Amino acid sequence: MGKFGKITEVNLRDIRFPTSLEHHGSDAMHGEVDYSGVYVCVKTDSGDGLVGCGIAFTLGRGNEIILKAVEVISKFAIGQELDNIFSNFGKFWRQITQEGQLRWLGPEKGVTHMAAAGLFNAIWDIWGKKVKKPVWKLLADMTPQEIVNLVDFSYLSEVLTKDEAIEILMSNKPTQEERERILLKEGFPAYTTSTGWLGYSDEILAQKCEAALKAGWTKFKMKVGSDLKDDKRRAKLIRDHIGYERDLMMDANQKWDVNDAISWMKELAEFKPLWIEEPTSPDDVLGHAAVAKALKPYNIGVATGEHCQNRVIFKQLLQANALSFLQIDSCRVGSINENIAILLLAKKFNVPVCPHAGGVGLCEMVQHIIMFDYLCVSGTKDGSRVCEYVDHLHEHFVDPVQVNNMAYMPPQNPGYSTEMKQSSLDDHDFPNGKVWDKLIREGKFKT
Amino acid sequence: MGKFGKITEVNLRDIRFPTSLEHHGSDAMHGEVDYSGVYVCVKTDSGDGLVGCGIAFTLGRGNEIILKAVEVISKFAIGQELDNIFSNFGKFWRQITQEGQLRWLGPEKGVTHMAAAGLFNAIWDIWGKKVKKPVWKLLADMTPQEIVNLVDFSYLSEVLTKDEAIEILMSNKPTQEERERILLKEGFPAYTTSTGWLGYSDEILAQKCEAALKAGWTKFKMKVGSDLKDDKRRAKLIRDHIGYERDLMMDANQKWDVNDAISWMKELAEFKPLWIEEPTSPDDVLGHAAVAKALKPYNIGVATGEHCQNRVIFKQLLQANALSFLQIDSCRVGSINENIAILLLAKKFNVPVCPHAGGVGLCEMVQHIIMFDYLCVSGTKDGSRVCEYVDHLHEHFVDPVQVNNMAYMPPQNPGYSTEMKQSSLDDHDFPNGKVWDKLIREGKFKT
Repeated sequence: MGKFGKITEVNLRDIRFPTSLEHHGSDAMHGEVDYSGVYVCVKTDSGDGLVGCGIAFTLGRGNEIILKAVEVISKFAIGQELDNIFSNFGKFWRQITQEGQLRWLGPEKGVTHMAAAGLFNAIWDIWGKKVKKPVWKLLADMTPQEIVNLVDFSYLSEVLTKDEAIEILMSNKPTQEERERILLKEGFPAYTTSTGWLGYSDEILAQKCEAALKAGWTKFKMKVGSDLKDDKRRAKLIRDHIGYERDLMMDANQKWDVNDAISWMKELAEFKPLWIEEPTSPDDVLGHAAVAKALKPYNIGVATGEHCQNRVIFKQLLQANALSFLQIDSCRVGSINENIAILLLAKKFNVPVCPHAGGVGLCEMVQHIIMFDYLCVSGTKDGSRVCEYVDHLHEHFVDPVQVNNMAYMPPQNPGYSTEMKQSSLDDHDFPNGKVWDKLIREGKFKT
Repeated sequence: MGKFGKITEVNLRDIRFPTSLEHHGSDAMHGEVDYSGVYVCVKTDSGDGLVGCGIAFTLGRGNEIILKAVEVISKFAIGQELDNIFSNFGKFWRQITQEGQLRWLGPEKGVTHMAAAGLFNAIWDIWGKKVKKPVWKLLADMTPQEIVNLVDFSYLSEVLTKDEAIEILMSNKPTQEERERILLKEGFPAYTTSTGWLGYSDEILAQKCEAALKAGWTKFKMKVGSDLKDDKRRAKLIRDHIGYERDLMMDANQKWDVNDAISWMKELAEFKPLWIEEPTSPDDVLGHAAVAKALKPYNIGVATGEHCQNRVIFKQLLQANALSFLQIDSCRVGSINENIAILLLAKKFNVPVCPHAGGVGLCEMVQHIIMFDYLCVSGTKDGSRVCEYVDHLHEHFVDPVQVNNMAYMPPQNPGYSTEMKQSSLDDHDFPNGKVWDKLIREGKFKT
C-alpha cells in the first residue's frame, strides 16, 4: 500500500449561489446567472482524515448534469492508489479523459471534460494537503521531469514535444528562487471585473468605478456587445472616470460573427481598449485570427480562453496568431494538468497568460496556476500579465484569496484553496439548503 | 391553439445493446463499445396519439449523463406549441442551444449538444408523423425560405449568409423533381464498414470481405492506427480480396498526432486508400489541414466529421482546405437543423458529403439528411458521394433502413425512422431490461 492511500470515496454536492438576484455576472450572452459548482470530495483509506475538495464551476442550471458526469467518471478513480496517480498523473489523466466508451461524449470537451476537471481539482487539493504545501508550491518544487509527467502531450507534438517542455522548465530553474522571493513579497498582479457588468445602471457603474479607483485598481474590464450606442456611452463614462493612463479591457462574451466583431470594435477603438475578449465563437480559431489581424492596426489585442475546451484549441489559436492574451480557466479544461500544457504552449509562442477568474472558486484555484507559470514557465510578470479578480463569494472559502495592493498573495495553507466552509455548503445545497429553500418558498426561484 | 398541439411530455429511456460481447465497433481508440442511445419520446395534447421518437447515440457508458442532460433541456420544450416551433425552428433551436445558464456547459458541444440533438430528433419525427411524410420528403417539399428558417446561421456569415443559402436552394429547385424520380428508383449509394473492425481475426476479415463482395459491395472501410505492420497485413489481405478497382477507405479514429498521421499514411499509400478518416483530434482544424496538404501528392483524401462538435468546426475545416470528404452525423451536432447549415457549407466549398452511420439508429436517421442533400443542396450523387452503412441492429426499428443493390432506398413511412419496437425497448432498457438483467446476473456485465 502507498503512503498516500487509496481513493475510497468521491462525494458530490450541488452547490449554487443565487447571484442572479443582484445581476452580478450579466453579459451579452448570459442574462441571469447563479454562480454554482459541483463540489467534489475525495477521501482515502490512509487514516489521516484529509479530504480533497474540488470544484467544477457552472452558471447554475446544468450543475446537475455535471454532477451526474462526475459520478460516472469517479468510478474509474475509486480504488486507485494516490501514489500511482501522483507518480504518473498524466497517464491517469488520459485514462479518465480517453475512457473507451465515455470519450464519445467529448472527447475532452464540454460536460465530461469539466466533470473530469472537478475530480482532478479535488485530487490536486488532497495532494497539496498530504504533502502540506499549497499547490503552487507543490508544483514549484517539482523537477522538470516530474512536471511533464503530469501532462498528456498527445495532439501537441508538431508544436511542442515533451523534450522541449523539459527545456523550457529547465531554463527557468536557476532564477526561480529569486522569483519566489518576489512573489511572496509582492504577489501576482490582478485586475478587476467587478465594475462593468451589463446589468448595472450608469449610476452604479460610476460608483463602482470610483470605488475601484479609490482602492487603487489600474486595470478595468467592461462588457460590450448588446448595443453599440450603449457600449459607447458606458465606455466614455468609464474612461471619464479612469482616464487613459489606466487600462480598459472589453469583453463581448462570444456575441458576434467575425465581421461584426471587427466593425463593432473599430467603432470602440477610440476608447483604446487593451483587448477585446471573446469576440466570437470560442471554437472559431480562424475567426479569432481574422479579428486579430483586422484589429492589429488599432492596437486592440484579442483575448480568449474561458470557453476554450482544451489544449488542442489553444494550440491552434497560438499557431494562427489569433491571441494577444491567453486566458486559462481552472475548471473548463482538465485541471492543472492540461493547464500546464497550455502554459507551455503560451511560453513557446511568447503570448502572455492572463487567467480568467471570478464566479465561485475560480480565483482561489487559478491563482496557484498563474503563480506556477510565473515561477517555472513564463518566468515573468511583464507583458501586461495580470490575473482576473472579482470580489464575490470568497467568504465561503476556508482559505480565501488574499488580494493586497492589487495583487494576489500566494496562499500559505496546504492544498488548492478549494475547501468551502461547512455552513456555506449546507446553506447553498441545491435545492434543499436553507438559502434555496427560502427563495423557492418565497417564489423567487423555481426548481 | 395550433393544429399540431403543445408539447406536454418528454419521456426518456436508457437503451443499450451489448455489442461489446462480439467486438463489433472496435477501433484504435474504442476497444469495447455497447451501441446505445437515450431514447426520447415527445407527446403533445393534440389528441392524435402520435409520439415523436428521437435518439441520442452513445457507446454505452455515459448514456445516463446524456439522459440527465435531455431531462434538463426538455424543461424548455414542455409547454411549447409545435406550430411555433415549426414556423421558426431555427429560433427555437437557438433558445435551447444558447440558454443563458446551460450554454456554459458547451456551448454547442459535447453532452449538452448531443442531448439537444436527441430532443430535436424526436421533434423532427413527430413533425413528419403529423404531416404524414417521411422527413426527407417533408424537407424536400419546403420552400428555400422555409428551409433557412430551420437553421441558426450565427458564426457563419463571413462564409455563408442566409441569402446565399437561399440562392443555393433556389438553384436546385428546377431540377429537383427529376432527382426525386431517380432517388425513388435507385436510392442513394452506400458503403459498408462491417468488414474491417480491428477486433476481427484475419480469418473473419477474409470471410467478411468475401461475403461483402458476393453481396455486391464496391467500397470498403478498414480501421487502422494500432500497429503499422498489422495495418499493412490487413490492408494487403483486403486488397487481395477486393482488388484495386474497388475503393478502400481507412479510418484511424483520432489515434495520431499530426506528423504521425502523415508518416503512417505514407506507409499505407501503396494500398491506395480513397481517404484517411479521423487522422487526429477532431478539434484540430489546422492539424487536418496539414495532413490533407501532405497526403495530397499521394491522392489520399482526408475525411472527418463524426466527432466534429458543430457547424463552426466544419466551417473552419472547409476554410482551411482540410477536407476531401465531409462526414455529417445525425446525433453529434444539433440534429437536422445544424446539419442543413453544414450541407450548405459543404456545397459552398464544393466538398462531397459522405455521412457517418452505423451504431444504432444512425443509418435510419442520416439517410433522410443525405437524401435531402441530394435533392435540394448538392444536387448530385457524383464525387464519390456515399453514405456509410453497417448491417447491425436494424431489426429493432419499426421502419428499418432498406438497402437494395448497395443503395439506401427512401423511407416511405411518416417520420424520421427513429421509432423502435416496444419489445426491443423493453428488453434493452439499461440495466433492468431482460437482456441486461440476464447478462448482469451471469456476471458478463457490471452496472
